[in-house]
Amino acid sequence: MTAEFTLSGTLGSARRGRLQLAHGVVETPAFMPVGTYGTVKAMTPEELDGLGAHIVLGNTFHLMLRPGREIVRAHGGLHGFMHWRKPILTDSGGFQVFSLESLRKITEEGVQFRSPIDGGAVRLTPEDSMDVQLALGSDIAMALDDCTPHPATEAQARESMERSMRWAARSHAHYYGAGREALGLETAPGELFGIVQGGMHLPLRLASLEALDKLPWKGLAVGGLAVGESEQERLHVLEGLLPHMPANKPRYLMGVGRPRDIIAAVLRGIDMFDCVMPTRHARNGHLFTSQGVVNIRNAAHQSDTGPLDPACACYTCRHFSRAYLRHLDRCNEILGARLNTIHNLHYYLELMRRLRAGIEAGDLDPVLREYLPAEDSKVCVA
Amino acid sequence: MTAEFTLSGTLGSARRGRLQLAHGVVETPAFMPVGTYGTVKAMTPEELDGLGAHIVLGNTFHLMLRPGREIVRAHGGLHGFMHWRKPILTDSGGFQVFSLESLRKITEEGVQFRSPIDGGAVRLTPEDSMDVQLALGSDIAMALDDCTPHPATEAQARESMERSMRWAARSHAHYYGAGREALGLETAPGELFGIVQGGMHLPLRLASLEALDKLPWKGLAVGGLAVGESEQERLHVLEGLLPHMPANKPRYLMGVGRPRDIIAAVLRGIDMFDCVMPTRHARNGHLFTSQGVVNIRNAAHQSDTGPLDPACACYTCRHFSRAYLRHLDRCNEILGARLNTIHNLHYYLELMRRLRAGIEAGDLDPVLREYLPAEDSKVCVA
Repeated sequence: MTAEFTLSGTLGSARRGRLQLAHGVVETPAFMPVGTYGTVKAMTPEELDGLGAHIVLGNTFHLMLRPGREIVRAHGGLHGFMHWRKPILTDSGGFQVFSLESLRKITEEGVQFRSPIDGGAVRLTPEDSMDVQLALGSDIAMALDDCTPHPATEAQARESMERSMRWAARSHAHYYGAGREALGLETAPGELFGIVQGGMHLPLRLASLEALDKLPWKGLAVGGLAVGESEQERLHVLEGLLPHMPANKPRYLMGVGRPRDIIAAVLRGIDMFDCVMPTRHARNGHLFTSQGVVNIRNAAHQSDTGPLDPACACYTCRHFSRAYLRHLDRCNEILGARLNTIHNLHYYLELMRRLRAGIEAGDLDPVLREYLPAEDSKVCVA
Repeated sequence: MTAEFTLSGTLGSARRGRLQLAHGVVETPAFMPVGTYGTVKAMTPEELDGLGAHIVLGNTFHLMLRPGREIVRAHGGLHGFMHWRKPILTDSGGFQVFSLESLRKITEEGVQFRSPIDGGAVRLTPEDSMDVQLALGSDIAMALDDCTPHPATEAQARESMERSMRWAARSHAHYYGAGREALGLETAPGELFGIVQGGMHLPLRLASLEALDKLPWKGLAVGGLAVGESEQERLHVLEGLLPHMPANKPRYLMGVGRPRDIIAAVLRGIDMFDCVMPTRHARNGHLFTSQGVVNIRNAAHQSDTGPLDPACACYTCRHFSRAYLRHLDRCNEILGARLNTIHNLHYYLELMRRLRAGIEAGDLDPVLREYLPAEDSKVCVA
């Protein structure tokens, strides 16, 4: 047993939980910083731990191309390779392949694509994805899915969803069966989550959920969102889908999103999130603060000796000025990317702590007031 | 009194000292990591401290262009701006202007040059350099010098050296006098070091030393080396010059260099060093180890699960493999630059610790055996 989910409390649809995994406990609602190539960009594992990350995400697609699964496996898996001893979730590679567009070809067997690194032909079937994720030794692996484009007709979305469901069953069989055995493992190193697809079509979402329900997944994800749909469309899917998802399994909303998107999804019953936004925005100088997003490249900060966010307790805000952060960014200094990333990850992880505490306390109003401008509340609050 | 040098021991010409500065003590022989733009590239101040750096170097030329002296001054100086509470030495800007070549024009008054940032006309006189360094609040400021090109005829080197000596006197007068007063300071924030010039011509070096001797410098530097001369030429200058330099003042060899160059200079009586080599090499994947320089980009390291240097106790070598470091470099990951920089700075700062301990113990043979390949010993050991 390497994935045990305990729900300790609810507030409306919002849930407070605890997910015991092979490498430790994830308190939910949780945000997972993205570590594409076996490193959350600019951060050491100790820094992530200090910021309060309980789990990080690794990208199967990127890691299978560089450095390749065998090199990671020779290090005892991704934990040993990147020196992160806490839980890791890996995605299936489906979303990245989906993003390649013209370079890929989807068949029933899987996906054929050209490596963006060297142009070579690469195959990714459900079995391939499981083999890589088993070699990486993730605490949570994800079934390979066919990510439905947006917009999609009902017929397109149905075809794609049904393929995802067949791939999900193949993923499950291979992860716990032949794939595991081929590596000589008595039990799988982690557990597999299924992914609900179906585009923006609620009946298809429910059909996808029903199809997945035939297998004993340890958790379920909502995929195929954060693909260009409007906030209203996304919330419509979540509001229609979440009441039907099993209460006793963790629910992971893939690739979402902005702080307001996370809040809105937590209020509707999502437990886990990942997004490149805090780390990517940091490197581009977009910084989340209690006063809104600050673009540190703005000339207004040139002589500002005050902290980025006086209300923030992160290392960056305690020791450095806006003028210094702007200077580092302007000079393209690595320390700038570091300090910005520390701040943005602190912002996200502090938001999750506040949401967890709010659910425990039975009162989310203070955190909503603090993190949501009044005009956003109408949309976000269920 | 903000610069007090105490010599605690010698071994041959090698010296063990202690330099008390406004922001703390520098144990010598000392290596100063270079923090061009108010950041030692990729490092936080706490990391530098943890690696054992007692002092860092800031570049006046770069900081006067970005972010400009007034912004740094508004932070209470460079210490506050970059959040480094230990000593800082700033160079004068002379060497960087020297490197601009076609963009600069030298007159008796000073140097006119085009800013490499925006092409604007910039002036750097001895008084300008002192004004900037006073505003930065460096523990050690450097006199503005005219860095003699290499090679230079005796006449060229003499003209350049004599100009440097006139600029040194103007630097001294302005730093302790009008420049300080203009900032409303009762005493200067640090102390000024003079710079011996004269190219590869030993009589000019001695004449430069004699000219400097007329003013009460708190320390003396040897400038105009590390400009393309051979190791033999450099050692010839050091061996001819150092016995004549006052024993009671710290001696700083500017811009040098490789570990073997530092060892050779320590053996001849140098106390302080700076060089971009450990940090720049790190970012290019050239890593100093007990087995020689390792190019981490080499395919030989692709699957190597062992540490970069099994004999090294740095954070990088304790937690990460050569394969991981190569992977990070290949993916252009910021963490790669960080881990490599930690390792190379550890190597340099550990070398300085070993040299200091060797002088104290009256035996440098073990450190020489460890850090100098046998074929280098003939040249380096005095």
